[in-house]
Amino acid sequence: MAFVPSSDTLAINTDLARRILTGFIRDEMAVVGFNRAVIGLSGGIDSALVAYLAAEALGAENVLCIRMPYKSSNPESLEHAGLVIDALGVPNLTVEITDMVDPLIERFPDMNAMRRGNIMVRQRMIILFDQSAAFNGLVLGTSNKTESLLGYSTIFGDSAAALQPIADLYKHQVRQLSRAVGVPAPIVDKPPSADLWPGQTDEGELGYTYDQADQLLYLLVDERYTLDEAVEAGFAREFVDRVWRTVRGVQFKRQMPVIAKLSRRTIGVDFLYLRDWGWRTPF
Amino acid sequence: MAFVPSSDTLAINTDLARRILTGFIRDEMAVVGFNRAVIGLSGGIDSALVAYLAAEALGAENVLCIRMPYKSSNPESLEHAGLVIDALGVPNLTVEITDMVDPLIERFPDMNAMRRGNIMVRQRMIILFDQSAAFNGLVLGTSNKTESLLGYSTIFGDSAAALQPIADLYKHQVRQLSRAVGVPAPIVDKPPSADLWPGQTDEGELGYTYDQADQLLYLLVDERYTLDEAVEAGFAREFVDRVWRTVRGVQFKRQMPVIAKLSRRTIGVDFLYLRDWGWRTPF
Repeated sequence: MAFVPSSDTLAINTDLARRILTGFIRDEMAVVGFNRAVIGLSGGIDSALVAYLAAEALGAENVLCIRMPYKSSNPESLEHAGLVIDALGVPNLTVEITDMVDPLIERFPDMNAMRRGNIMVRQRMIILFDQSAAFNGLVLGTSNKTESLLGYSTIFGDSAAALQPIADLYKHQVRQLSRAVGVPAPIVDKPPSADLWPGQTDEGELGYTYDQADQLLYLLVDERYTLDEAVEAGFAREFVDRVWRTVRGVQFKRQMPVIAKLSRRTIGVDFLYLRDWGWRTPF
Repeated sequence: MAFVPSSDTLAINTDLARRILTGFIRDEMAVVGFNRAVIGLSGGIDSALVAYLAAEALGAENVLCIRMPYKSSNPESLEHAGLVIDALGVPNLTVEITDMVDPLIERFPDMNAMRRGNIMVRQRMIILFDQSAAFNGLVLGTSNKTESLLGYSTIFGDSAAALQPIADLYKHQVRQLSRAVGVPAPIVDKPPSADLWPGQTDEGELGYTYDQADQLLYLLVDERYTLDEAVEAGFAREFVDRVWRTVRGVQFKRQMPVIAKLSRRTIGVDFLYLRDWGWRTPF
């Protein structure tokens, strides 16, 4: 009999996840000689959760939270980021990006909303990485597993980071863990939005809900269902095809640029080491 | 007997390299449905070589070359990029970055030259990726093997690209191939510089010459010499240690951010596919 998995299938042990993720943040920092983090706070749930985890892992005083509104950003986003800052007592900065991105936007007046949005997201990356140098901290990414699989992110923008603490959690699990660590309810309960233009919501842009995507992705990725098995489980063929086509088509966002091989040892092909190669093992 | 390899050891068959690299550009584009490229022309040799290869691979009309000077950039850089544009007859744009980066630079007046330089480099990435959307082309990277191994680049800046055509060529080989494809002599012969501040040269900043670095890296990476064997071959112990420490310490620049593993299938750990997964194989 066909079944569509309930969101219970996705439930995680939040105590264990919290322990693993705070340990990850602390250990991956320590091994490369850091104990401070920089996080861009959008006002949304993903960056709020990362800020809570980082403050627990490193101490609030070691987590610099940065708000980077554009002139058309929803004032609620700034307020919600402020709830996190106040609750955690973290050092923080507000750097408006308008005068940095408008010269480029105005240079090409026919630019569509997607291009404008990508410019804003990448401008925020510039600020985060600049402040990581000033604060002597590492930039923590705020991507979750759902958006990483769907490529719902800007390459070299919001997906740019040193470490990705929550990128193995589906959106449903981000919500579950956020409630457990105490992220303020208005942030957990509002509809997710990249807030790049008025009225934008993730689910409106994707064309389906996170609950639908999470449940299907869990079967295809974690349970290794075939597409036919996902349809037998109760998902519409069209939805399954559409989601899987997206997941495959955005693989480039999850990889380093391809290097043309010429020599006998090529970076990324047969010159391969762990990220902390130069740090974990003695020289 | 100790020997230090001559630069002849690094010599490549330029006809073969040219054929492989133009094929790489054409094929890697075609498989994801593209036939146009976007390149940031700095006035230096690496981006000039990539422009020559791309024009040969795709036709000059399909290669958009962009010059992005800052107010303090050396005017010679703009001129040298102009030599490439004129010689190839490629579509081109000049977008000055000064009014985009100065608002951030002025916001933090204690910013050092390194931070200012990284902001400029990342701003250029924003423009290239924005123009890749406008031109419907892929951004070609201009990193070479020497700078990739030494991490002499800005992460999410000049190392950000869709494809890296020359990242398996040492600087010496970049020069050799550039002469073979006809890059203008003033570009091939001048001292390499990121031109982020007046008087900056790569070799001044690195503290050694590209010839020295290339020859040592070739032995350590391509020939898999141990450090002791490199010293026996005639390199100073201090130089060998210093270079290898750098190569190891910047491994993070050659990898995607680390994702904390929680589930049974994690992106980058056990969810692994080729970059063109969604394109090369039938759906």
